[in-house]
Amino acid sequence: MKSILTPLGPKADKDTVRRHNLSLVLRAVRDEGESGEATRAGVAARVGLTRAAVSSLVEQLMDSGFLTESGKTFSGQAGRPGTALKVARTGPAGLGVEINIDYVSVCVVDLAGTGRVRQTEHLDNRGAPAEEVLARAARIAARTLDSAREQELRPVGAALALPGLVSAGSVRQAPNLGWNEVPAQELFADALAALRPGHRALPVASENEANLAALAELWFGGLGDVRSFLYLTGEIGVGGALVIDGELLRGAHGFAGEIGHVVVDPDGPECRCGSRGCLEQYAGQTALLRAAGIEGAGGGAGVVELERRARAGDERAVAALAGAGRMLGRVVSGAVNLVDPDAVVLGGIYRGLMPWLAPPADEELTGRVVSGLWSPGGGRLRASSVAGDAARGAAALVVQDVLDDPVAYAEPSGV
Amino acid sequence: MKSILTPLGPKADKDTVRRHNLSLVLRAVRDEGESGEATRAGVAARVGLTRAAVSSLVEQLMDSGFLTESGKTFSGQAGRPGTALKVARTGPAGLGVEINIDYVSVCVVDLAGTGRVRQTEHLDNRGAPAEEVLARAARIAARTLDSAREQELRPVGAALALPGLVSAGSVRQAPNLGWNEVPAQELFADALAALRPGHRALPVASENEANLAALAELWFGGLGDVRSFLYLTGEIGVGGALVIDGELLRGAHGFAGEIGHVVVDPDGPECRCGSRGCLEQYAGQTALLRAAGIEGAGGGAGVVELERRARAGDERAVAALAGAGRMLGRVVSGAVNLVDPDAVVLGGIYRGLMPWLAPPADEELTGRVVSGLWSPGGGRLRASSVAGDAARGAAALVVQDVLDDPVAYAEPSGV
Repeated sequence: MKSILTPLGPKADKDTVRRHNLSLVLRAVRDEGESGEATRAGVAARVGLTRAAVSSLVEQLMDSGFLTESGKTFSGQAGRPGTALKVARTGPAGLGVEINIDYVSVCVVDLAGTGRVRQTEHLDNRGAPAEEVLARAARIAARTLDSAREQELRPVGAALALPGLVSAGSVRQAPNLGWNEVPAQELFADALAALRPGHRALPVASENEANLAALAELWFGGLGDVRSFLYLTGEIGVGGALVIDGELLRGAHGFAGEIGHVVVDPDGPECRCGSRGCLEQYAGQTALLRAAGIEGAGGGAGVVELERRARAGDERAVAALAGAGRMLGRVVSGAVNLVDPDAVVLGGIYRGLMPWLAPPADEELTGRVVSGLWSPGGGRLRASSVAGDAARGAAALVVQDVLDDPVAYAEPSGV
Repeated sequence: MKSILTPLGPKADKDTVRRHNLSLVLRAVRDEGESGEATRAGVAARVGLTRAAVSSLVEQLMDSGFLTESGKTFSGQAGRPGTALKVARTGPAGLGVEINIDYVSVCVVDLAGTGRVRQTEHLDNRGAPAEEVLARAARIAARTLDSAREQELRPVGAALALPGLVSAGSVRQAPNLGWNEVPAQELFADALAALRPGHRALPVASENEANLAALAELWFGGLGDVRSFLYLTGEIGVGGALVIDGELLRGAHGFAGEIGHVVVDPDGPECRCGSRGCLEQYAGQTALLRAAGIEGAGGGAGVVELERRARAGDERAVAALAGAGRMLGRVVSGAVNLVDPDAVVLGGIYRGLMPWLAPPADEELTGRVVSGLWSPGGGRLRASSVAGDAARGAAALVVQDVLDDPVAYAEPSGV
């Protein structure tokens, strides 16, 4: 996994350079493949600093609890045998909290990006007021933090993944939750603080759920060299996110990625967003189940039934999926012409429905992508991995902050 | 104008830091408002380096001919009077070469971003083979370089602005020129080198024309705080570009921005790109003139006639513009939902047609932008300035390289 570097910006003085280099070294150790092991010499070669400089940086990172020596030694290509380094399995970590329509999922991710604790509760969040939903999420988070503590993990911040338009800590609208202008970040932070008297308050961030699922796909999925992609997630609606050169495109107001509300037919059915004929009226879960003649079955069960029928060759189910696939292909072709991503990743309910959705979508894309660089089965349209998980993405987003500037998150003395 | 910083990247050693800081100081002087004058103390405050460090960096930049003292002195808020600095009016510069359907325009831009030499020739580039068009452009460029030399300007590179899909120096396709797989960069560079025996070969870059017009709009237009925008240019077709956080979004293959080929009606008229019902079949110049009943009039004259008729209240002209405006609004609303830019800028023939295009486009946008952050006349939809000029954008792109790392472009000794 390549790291997501933040530019050093103006004023590159000595202190800034050292902090920048600490981040480089920490990331280099972390990124040293699956083994998570690296030598000082290997790191020096990788980041282009001298062996002596790297040794000094490693020492500081070990003193602060970010790196440990694995005890193993091995001889590299050059010089005397090196002691293997790895990122600490304890210490700074990230907390991710996904609040979705019918579940809350909370996880803790360590510096290596590994999910270490997970608690998920299935419940209907549509019935309750926003305050109650967030208080419930805070209770699950508090229990998760207790578990993390037992593993000597110290989450330094939390990120909320929310299914709606999120800006400056508030949910501007989340129609499927029935939320409007909910200061989610503050409500959650207050509820969590109230549950943990005597603890320092945890900084809380928040982000659109599809955005975080896309980041999880980037960091933990099997995307290989793909650094720019459009991510669509089929849910009750259709969520989306754009990752460009390994960075989330948030947009001027934080509302980028809303591909579910690209218009397909200007005179089509009314959408809950206020417009007409949006993609999600044709390819969202509700529309898809209705077209397939599956009414009444709750979300998950309905999709399972749709897949069962399609597999059995049920004509109506297959036609519904073909229609949705064509609509997806049409809208995605416009997005590809506009942003020219490496790949388009379909997640959520689309993952299991790919055998029926992908061929018609690919056909539309092949005919409509202006560069001519789209071919059926050419690999640019792909299913998300199971790693495309918003809670893990949220937790990992916190960890990114730690990796960007470890000094800022060194263990406070006396704790 | 804010500068476009490149990240310092791995290995921040002393030499890299100094080169980075030379760039910071040069940009700071250049960006010091319209006056182009700055003091060492002002620069030090702006970039966050010490006065002593800035003085040393300024000395090096003056020795290499990037900065001059204006002779004027004035007392700032603090300390003794400072001597005003400005970027040199001579020395390193950029050459921009726009090759369009019916003209070639070449310009030289100095370090301050000022256009200093311009040569434009109107001619029909559709009739001739690509080699001949590029050789013609090289002749105009050679004459422009002679003029630049008389002004003691030394273009360090050239950038071609081309109306088509450009990748790795080649035009993949430019349907309106009838070009397919033309190695434009190489052909131009060779033709120019043959015209200038005894001169060092000029490095040549190439880029899509709408992309460069968008950069010119960013750097020289009146966009104020706007750093992310979608740019559409009405031509024979409809060109487009996306600027995100002050950087051009090129896409994975260099083909981003092709909003003219976003599908409006899947069963609509055939487009020369091979698809059907693309935006340019409804809002391109050819479609617009046909809908208005203006046939036969060549490009420029036809648009002038369209504007004249619309102003006179001709029903067919007004209806054609209203229809095109609605289509633009529909497609742009999808793009806004996807990338959430600060603004949408309409250039090319759309500039003069804004009074008729903007209201229906704004209405569609207001109804379809999901964030609710679009209001009629809210200022997010705007006409391009006259500065949105691809040749100047191309030349300025070369200058950006100089500003990024002045050391690499210091006057070679003995020239």
